[in-house]
Amino acid sequence: MEDKVGRIFLLMLVFIPISLFFAFVIHSPTLTFIASVLAIVPLARIVGFSAKEIALRSNVTLGGFLNVIFGNLIVLMIAAFAMRKGLIEIVKAAVIGSIIGNLLLLIGLSIFMGGLKYKEQIFNKDSTGVSSTMLIIAVAGLAIPSVYALTVESEIHHVQYLSDSVALVMALIYIAGLVFAYFTHNYIFDSSDDIKAAKEKPTTTLERAVLILILAVVFVAFEAWLLVGNIEVAASVFGLREFFFGAVVVALITNVAEKSNAIYFALENKINLSIEIGMSSAIQIALFVVPVLVFISQFLHYGFLLSFTAFEIVCVMFPVMIISYLSAGGKTNWLEGAQLITVYLIIASAFYFI
Amino acid sequence: MEDKVGRIFLLMLVFIPISLFFAFVIHSPTLTFIASVLAIVPLARIVGFSAKEIALRSNVTLGGFLNVIFGNLIVLMIAAFAMRKGLIEIVKAAVIGSIIGNLLLLIGLSIFMGGLKYKEQIFNKDSTGVSSTMLIIAVAGLAIPSVYALTVESEIHHVQYLSDSVALVMALIYIAGLVFAYFTHNYIFDSSDDIKAAKEKPTTTLERAVLILILAVVFVAFEAWLLVGNIEVAASVFGLREFFFGAVVVALITNVAEKSNAIYFALENKINLSIEIGMSSAIQIALFVVPVLVFISQFLHYGFLLSFTAFEIVCVMFPVMIISYLSAGGKTNWLEGAQLITVYLIIASAFYFI
Amino acid sequence: MEDKVGRIFLLMLVFIPISLFFAFVIHSPTLTFIASVLAIVPLARIVGFSAKEIALRSNVTLGGFLNVIFGNLIVLMIAAFAMRKGLIEIVKAAVIGSIIGNLLLLIGLSIFMGGLKYKEQIFNKDSTGVSSTMLIIAVAGLAIPSVYALTVESEIHHVQYLSDSVALVMALIYIAGLVFAYFTHNYIFDSSDDIKAAKEKPTTTLERAVLILILAVVFVAFEAWLLVGNIEVAASVFGLREFFFGAVVVALITNVAEKSNAIYFALENKINLSIEIGMSSAIQIALFVVPVLVFISQFLHYGFLLSFTAFEIVCVMFPVMIISYLSAGGKTNWLEGAQLITVYLIIASAFYFI
Repeated sequence: MEDKVGRIFLLMLVFIPISLFFAFVIHSPTLTFIASVLAIVPLARIVGFSAKEIALRSNVTLGGFLNVIFGNLIVLMIAAFAMRKGLIEIVKAAVIGSIIGNLLLLIGLSIFMGGLKYKEQIFNKDSTGVSSTMLIIAVAGLAIPSVYALTVESEIHHVQYLSDSVALVMALIYIAGLVFAYFTHNYIFDSSDDIKAAKEKPTTTLERAVLILILAVVFVAFEAWLLVGNIEVAASVFGLREFFFGAVVVALITNVAEKSNAIYFALENKINLSIEIGMSSAIQIALFVVPVLVFISQFLHYGFLLSFTAFEIVCVMFPVMIISYLSAGGKTNWLEGAQLITVYLIIASAFYFI
Repeated sequence: MEDKVGRIFLLMLVFIPISLFFAFVIHSPTLTFIASVLAIVPLARIVGFSAKEIALRSNVTLGGFLNVIFGNLIVLMIAAFAMRKGLIEIVKAAVIGSIIGNLLLLIGLSIFMGGLKYKEQIFNKDSTGVSSTMLIIAVAGLAIPSVYALTVESEIHHVQYLSDSVALVMALIYIAGLVFAYFTHNYIFDSSDDIKAAKEKPTTTLERAVLILILAVVFVAFEAWLLVGNIEVAASVFGLREFFFGAVVVALITNVAEKSNAIYFALENKINLSIEIGMSSAIQIALFVVPVLVFISQFLHYGFLLSFTAFEIVCVMFPVMIISYLSAGGKTNWLEGAQLITVYLIIASAFYFI
Repeated sequence: MEDKVGRIFLLMLVFIPISLFFAFVIHSPTLTFIASVLAIVPLARIVGFSAKEIALRSNVTLGGFLNVIFGNLIVLMIAAFAMRKGLIEIVKAAVIGSIIGNLLLLIGLSIFMGGLKYKEQIFNKDSTGVSSTMLIIAVAGLAIPSVYALTVESEIHHVQYLSDSVALVMALIYIAGLVFAYFTHNYIFDSSDDIKAAKEKPTTTLERAVLILILAVVFVAFEAWLLVGNIEVAASVFGLREFFFGAVVVALITNVAEKSNAIYFALENKINLSIEIGMSSAIQIALFVVPVLVFISQFLHYGFLLSFTAFEIVCVMFPVMIISYLSAGGKTNWLEGAQLITVYLIIASAFYFI
């Protein structure tokens, strides 16, 4: 099943030339936007695949590093291009939407689909427990500077300093989490690593993997540039407000879609993997991508600060609360999946009207 | 013990003629209000009893449907009458107060009283876990449109659309929860169903049950009409503000009081049943009554929207947080009951000054 | 190890004469402030030690009472002096900072240091569960009147009445918690009491203990008076805003520092004791010190109300959420300690800019 999907993804590479055609021959922003989005989906897979190939041949530190960097490269590129264009609010929306989409929609669909096939699915409470605490920290890191900015009368450079120091602390605890997971307490995550290991044997040579990675990154950069360049026109053509566009459309396409294999794992009764993919993606967005965006923004004066709106903060809090609660249970059923999807629909409905 | 209580309840039917007398002979709004409230208490019991009798003879789907409809009929009737009179804020207060009253006061008193008799009481974590997640969803459903309405500059018809769509999603997950509890995963709730089954054998004929139900509903409608018609005068005579009146007096009388048997179950060491009654009542208010009120309001232009105040939202969040936390423990003691009552008193104190 | 520390503490008594010298000979507010702070650290130990000596010879009720009173005496004295000077905001900051410092920094450092030495440390989930619920109640008690004051248009005497009634309810549940822990359900806390008991045999005579206690209290009162009298000048000399000064410097020095033995217990693999010290200190601040301050303030018209800022409330909520979550797990590792410290750093960063 995954092989078929893989082939479909490869076929989607045809959208690279198509996007060029739309951009430079037809000059249609909307069509270019759509084509660039569709081209990014297979490219994301290829970046992920080749980064993993290289990681498998390196030691665990470098490997983990490569996976984190290249796993979030597309999001980072799109965000950087968008920030340069001053689309800070869309970037913030995409950050919030990616966290919510991973936690609620990706994990929700996985648990729901898996639950239709299996009455109950078991997962490893210890590993999800570590992730839950990380998510609470992530929310604290997003919320506290934001509540400061919203409620304390303060000068803008104070919010900037606060953003920088909180981003630094968030990045440090993220690294601490990697040390914990890969070195000092890797046994907690063993069961799922077993499953992973079975899948993860190098299938190509190192040279080829590096070459593919470089090529893919170049194309990704180009398509991300096309995507961001046409995003505003596309949003208005679709009649969507920028917030919804960022938080739902962009977030799902650039971050959540490529992790859709989480749903296949659930159908193979490996719900542990599905939950881990969703939670760690959300954690990476909050504790790796967000700090990097704050630092980039600081150096290039883009103005991305840890100051989200009260509404955005509330919308991130509920998913984390419900995921923490469910992740303490140790088993899943279809209703829990439906409950996560329900919260996603409630939040997405509200996003629609912002 | 329950029999005696049952007879006392039946005696209270005398308040039906008394309320007529106060309303149409004496013309005293306050006395009419009090009498109608007292008349509703036994009628609520009779509606519940006869609906259950009919439910026991029908299949599980129709039975569950009847129990949900008639279990919340009085609240719905009072709310509908009140909304027609434009008392939207009292209805919202009563909704919030019913959720809080069921979770904190009903469960709190049950656990406290049960805890005075038994050192520790055990309950089924799996079934309360499902309810806890439903409660978190309920809070998300009430909070997210409210925070939207409070913090996002928006047109009123957007809040209306958002209310409608969130209400729809909430109703759907409520139905999903019933499918889960009655069909796909009924074994999770088995232990308590056993207890229920022992009590639930038909004690009267179907024809009689239907006749009693129809009569009771007619009287309930009439008394609810009297109650709502005199509520404003009564509130001002008692010197209570409308919010406190709705959230504490009306909520306790019309929704929480009739579930007082939860406390008897606790004294019989069936704390599981007590907790289930309290949690499922709160869930029914939030995920069944609230959506129905939104839909009624939409068709009849009553203006009941999912836009609660920040204070109301915070007051619903704490009970759900604390109940979720306690429900993960699997056992209760008197202190936990006292803790729930404490939170109720804190919230009710604040309600007094609104 | 503890003995050595004990001797160092005794040596610090030299700061009593030094503070006199700075106050009345040199007339330097900043130096006096520093010396008084340093003098209070050993005095706090001596008060705690002699109160415990007396407690060990009395029955459990009086003993518990003595421990609670004298364990919080210094905080109460400093707060009372500060309120008399009108420094209400510093007192509130110190209250919030003490709760956060105990939960995040004290427990965080204990778990982190203990986790560096032991791969995993086990604690008693049942006793931390009771404390977690108390903490949720504490947050509800601080948050609900505050949200009322912030969002409901209300007269100040309503906030006063609400403060008083909520403070009363909080004090009652605190007493209920003591009854639970010392009388009806003391077996839940047995394991840690064992450890305590081993350490807690009287080492001096009752007369000497009483004499030492009286002397220490007199000196504490004097040093607290010096501290408060010079706090404003000191804050401005250090270039710190009053909020940060109260919430971090004062809170850590007067409340958290004296519990630093929690870290030693963690290193001796008695993480249960460390967590208990941190949680019960936070609970004492919220449910004992705060109500007492409200009552004192009511009688002496100092104006300390349960009306914290939205930012303060949010800053108390996250530590309680994360501690509740961790305390349900039953074991600790270094990462959890680092996570708690991370949240402390995030909050302290924000405090810095208030």
